Amino acid sequence: MTNSYDALFEPLELGPVEIPNRVYQPPHGNAYGLGDQQTAFRAEKAKGGFGLIIQEYSQIHESTDVTPVDPGFLHTDETIEPQREMVEAVHDHGSKLFVELWHGGLTASNYGSRHPPLSSSQTPSGNYYTPKEMEHEDIREIVEAFGTAADRARRAGYDGVELHAAHGYLISQFLSPFYNDRDDEYGGSLENRMRFFEEVIDSVDDAIGDEMAFGARFTIDERVEGGLTADGEGLEIVERVGDDLDFWDLDIGVKQSIDDMIGPSRRHSKNYQIEFIEEATEVLDVPVGGTGRITDPRDAERLLESGSLDMVGMARQSIADPHWPKKAREGRVDQIRECIGCNICVSQSRQGIPLICTQNPTVGEEQRWGPEAYEQVDEPKGILVVGGGPAGTEFARVAAERGHIVHLNEKERELGGRVNFEGSLPGLSEWKRVRDWRETELDRLDVAVHTGSRAEMEYDDVRTYGAEVVVIATGGHWSEKGVTSGTHQPVPGWDQDHVLTPKEAVDADLSDERVVIFDEEGYNVSAGVAQTLAEDNDLTFVTPRTSAFQEALHTFERKTIYSDLYSAGVDFVPDHTLTQVGEGTVTATNVYSDEATMFDADYVVFTTMRKSNDGLYRELKANEEALTSETEIEEVHAIGDCVSPRRIADAIYHGHELGRQT
Amino acid sequence: MTNSYDALFEPLELGPVEIPNRVYQPPHGNAYGLGDQQTAFRAEKAKGGFGLIIQEYSQIHESTDVTPVDPGFLHTDETIEPQREMVEAVHDHGSKLFVELWHGGLTASNYGSRHPPLSSSQTPSGNYYTPKEMEHEDIREIVEAFGTAADRARRAGYDGVELHAAHGYLISQFLSPFYNDRDDEYGGSLENRMRFFEEVIDSVDDAIGDEMAFGARFTIDERVEGGLTADGEGLEIVERVGDDLDFWDLDIGVKQSIDDMIGPSRRHSKNYQIEFIEEATEVLDVPVGGTGRITDPRDAERLLESGSLDMVGMARQSIADPHWPKKAREGRVDQIRECIGCNICVSQSRQGIPLICTQNPTVGEEQRWGPEAYEQVDEPKGILVVGGGPAGTEFARVAAERGHIVHLNEKERELGGRVNFEGSLPGLSEWKRVRDWRETELDRLDVAVHTGSRAEMEYDDVRTYGAEVVVIATGGHWSEKGVTSGTHQPVPGWDQDHVLTPKEAVDADLSDERVVIFDEEGYNVSAGVAQTLAEDNDLTFVTPRTSAFQEALHTFERKTIYSDLYSAGVDFVPDHTLTQVGEGTVTATNVYSDEATMFDADYVVFTTMRKSNDGLYRELKANEEALTSETEIEEVHAIGDCVSPRRIADAIYHGHELGRQT
Repeated sequence: MTNSYDALFEPLELGPVEIPNRVYQPPHGNAYGLGDQQTAFRAEKAKGGFGLIIQEYSQIHESTDVTPVDPGFLHTDETIEPQREMVEAVHDHGSKLFVELWHGGLTASNYGSRHPPLSSSQTPSGNYYTPKEMEHEDIREIVEAFGTAADRARRAGYDGVELHAAHGYLISQFLSPFYNDRDDEYGGSLENRMRFFEEVIDSVDDAIGDEMAFGARFTIDERVEGGLTADGEGLEIVERVGDDLDFWDLDIGVKQSIDDMIGPSRRHSKNYQIEFIEEATEVLDVPVGGTGRITDPRDAERLLESGSLDMVGMARQSIADPHWPKKAREGRVDQIRECIGCNICVSQSRQGIPLICTQNPTVGEEQRWGPEAYEQVDEPKGILVVGGGPAGTEFARVAAERGHIVHLNEKERELGGRVNFEGSLPGLSEWKRVRDWRETELDRLDVAVHTGSRAEMEYDDVRTYGAEVVVIATGGHWSEKGVTSGTHQPVPGWDQDHVLTPKEAVDADLSDERVVIFDEEGYNVSAGVAQTLAEDNDLTFVTPRTSAFQEALHTFERKTIYSDLYSAGVDFVPDHTLTQVGEGTVTATNVYSDEATMFDADYVVFTTMRKSNDGLYRELKANEEALTSETEIEEVHAIGDCVSPRRIADAIYHGHELGRQT
Repeated sequence: MTNSYDALFEPLELGPVEIPNRVYQPPHGNAYGLGDQQTAFRAEKAKGGFGLIIQEYSQIHESTDVTPVDPGFLHTDETIEPQREMVEAVHDHGSKLFVELWHGGLTASNYGSRHPPLSSSQTPSGNYYTPKEMEHEDIREIVEAFGTAADRARRAGYDGVELHAAHGYLISQFLSPFYNDRDDEYGGSLENRMRFFEEVIDSVDDAIGDEMAFGARFTIDERVEGGLTADGEGLEIVERVGDDLDFWDLDIGVKQSIDDMIGPSRRHSKNYQIEFIEEATEVLDVPVGGTGRITDPRDAERLLESGSLDMVGMARQSIADPHWPKKAREGRVDQIRECIGCNICVSQSRQGIPLICTQNPTVGEEQRWGPEAYEQVDEPKGILVVGGGPAGTEFARVAAERGHIVHLNEKERELGGRVNFEGSLPGLSEWKRVRDWRETELDRLDVAVHTGSRAEMEYDDVRTYGAEVVVIATGGHWSEKGVTSGTHQPVPGWDQDHVLTPKEAVDADLSDERVVIFDEEGYNVSAGVAQTLAEDNDLTFVTPRTSAFQEALHTFERKTIYSDLYSAGVDFVPDHTLTQVGEGTVTATNVYSDEATMFDADYVVFTTMRKSNDGLYRELKANEEALTSETEIEEVHAIGDCVSPRRIADAIYHGHELGRQT
């Protein structure tokens, strides 16, 4: 045992409630709704050792909804019962469950209730509505509703409540001069802007009695011009309210700076929010929790020992590995699946799609797949896996956990597949954790890994290998033809030497060349190629989409990509499809007006679509009858991109699922 | 009675099933899921006289889902029971209910199941995945699944099934050379491409027995380069299959041409699809239905009499007025709420948000509000409505339906409010139906309408009016300051004469001027101003958003707007915020790189946000105690944009809701 991280596992008093350790999950949504899946998801984290879990933002009143996204609910009595079950499931593992009381104010479009969104002022929403400036009777109603919702939380058995006074939601919309331009007693001076918050605190205090912990999530620095700052009113609010609350859960960022609130690894390094929070920890007498890409037990320990935090919050890391605390405590740090900061979790759930994770394919599946529990097979089989990318390594790992004898053959020198390329692009080095964790696990599980043959296994190699189960995971490749969803046709002139694949473009020395990228991916590969080439080249980025990098919008990576590319002088040409690759030029045609424009181009890169490397699999399947009758082979499967090129998360899920079934 | 439209109300045999008339609802989604709301929604149309209703696209297999959008379901036995209730509810009104059998193929991202999307070929999806090219065993499984799902439809009691062989979904992906590039017996020749469709037909035929009708929805013209056409293979497929089916439900367009499939009024005039369909009606022995903005009973009658169609399909019109057939039959054509073609219905439901309608606020509320059923009040009250826009006229209409004595005061000469301006913008004249229908109804209901005073009623006017209930519906106005969600601050220099409101810009004669529009609305007003000014001016369109007209994306209006503006040479400057209005120039700053650029500008128009005209309401509320104690006034309410400027649909809903409650 290398380190037991004692500081992490000291109990902590949050008002009347003692939590068993200092590792907590700050509230985050998952679009699972209420019920068995939500319960299983939160309970798994308790099982894995999180001492405190704070259930996601829960609507406290019918005047706030974000349909079709399903947050938690505390606006009716009917919501109490399923939450009681969740509380009990968390208690079964010795952990505490709090809940976050939320009103979205102007951020809630209310497409469910169709009632007017409410706010302190008629602040622009950025969408096609302006909220109602709350009347005094609205304020009274919502203040009371916070209390009523807190009482529901009490009746559901929650150990505590946390006000959502953060992220530019309703309480923020009163506190922050960025939102509040009222001229009555709820606007103007800091004292006036704090009035709503204080009335809500009183209302909730009255409702919860003496046995529940009561805290607030609060954005101490809004990261917007004119907003609260950690060295200004943000800190002052914390000081003024102080120990009227039992604890504070602090972070940074509002909707306009959400790329700082839920910072992707592309933008923010680990522990990036601590510098904004540590002064509040110092001035406050009550415990302070903080978050922001804390993934390493050594960092977590240090942040507690230095007094920067009193408890360590992990949202994304608790998704990537709900057993993080248990593994840290037991000295199994190598086995922790560290979050890669890709933000596919929040990207999905904020669109109403059930939350997933790249690193942890069991997220959302806890009712059938325990992330650390593998059903052992009765009769171990000899399994050959061809391809050591995300799908192949994940399958091999799971099959080995279940007791099979697994051989994995990867033609390249390194495991990792596409992750090796994508993780080498600017800002994405943490994505290589997808490979690293699996490599370590395959070693621990004694999987026979063969790398570096440089040649793909062929039909006869597989046929004569002696395996009973063959799993093909040979990945995909970028189409060289520039085919897009708009045309379904190759770009005329695609078959020339100066038309490059993404990898060729990154590997080549293209300094001072004129390069055109033609893109329909809109995600990490086109961004990475563009970032790599932008500095030293004259780069034109052509896409038939109406804007570039739409896939990176919900992962909060777009601001970073755009900043880089605009600053480097990249010329964006949206709404155009490439209609000809010539020598030294390309022709791009406006998809709306049909007007054609020529651009200089010494080199052209297509990042439009990927196709499967499915030759080996198709050949095996074509001969399945012969193989199963004449060799030891009983089953042939394909997983990951060699079936359907999708996200890394999908390839891992596909491999995992087959592993559970084999 | 002016006309009873006899041709519409002749029964029709669809194979073994007789439908009572020729007016049907082709399948459309609504994101209501299965259950009481879905049942109430479809039953209301039966009550209103639609002879045939075809329940929405229903997934036939677990390998296709469009999470978080909830289509119909036929992939498990558990889905049968709630559908049986829906069938019975439709039968109670003498109508027939069919269901559409759907597999999305490559269009289904499968974020629910996480299984690989399937297609005939690895055609680009336009999103971050490529589908699996279906193996023969996949084809066999899906062919069988169509039969199994059809059997579930039979067990649920449906009167018929319709294959979804349209819109670029899975069956289309085999039929159409735009998608299918297989080189086996399912690709290549038309005969080969039809093989999957024919196998599905056989599978379903076997499952449904002799008592159910069996048809297909089929896209006879895909409106894409290389796709099926109505004078080519589209017609040939119809001819080859012919009366193997009992009926055909034809339309045009796939995902890439969805603005032609569900054409907004901005793009397509009424009955626009008929020219593609009528030849098929002529060559086929079995009945053919068609759709595409058929809203007028005279048109519908003519299309039947001329032989262009055998039955008339209405999806959007059946949403705007589920009692269209009943009103036509009873000679109450003036009372039909004609669809305005704004497409807010599909815009919402395709994002997973429950379907709504601008014209019909009772959509989705049928369980509590019958669109033609108003609870009469015991004690009629005297009601004063100030403001005759969408909210005010809708409230007045509903209050009058319920038996109140209603006076409505509109300062302008015409009723309509914002609709008068927005409906005057290029391509939006049908939006004026919002006003016209309500004006006709107010007249029929004897509401006392006073218009043309040119001055808003003031506090004393209201105080002394003698009303018991006062409803303020004074609308909103465009902010003159250029405030956006990114800055929350006025644009420096906003207070100059050459900074115009949208209406000023449209009304002024700005020929040959250099105009800058600064926009965050991204919808019909900024589009309309730009379209108006683009032809005769040098127009620059600046927006902090990453692209213009994002609100028009899901209404399928964006292609038309972009075509107009690109063709007119408009200069789009996305990702920029206006940081200074000077004399003859503006400064726009890149929101990502902070780089500032100057643009020539003789005039500047802000279309960034709207605020409420709530002065009168706030004054009345401030004196509420005095008013209720000293005058007849018992209640003061505000509705619509004067509370929270939102969409026209929201204002109408707000007015309707208060009308039901007063």
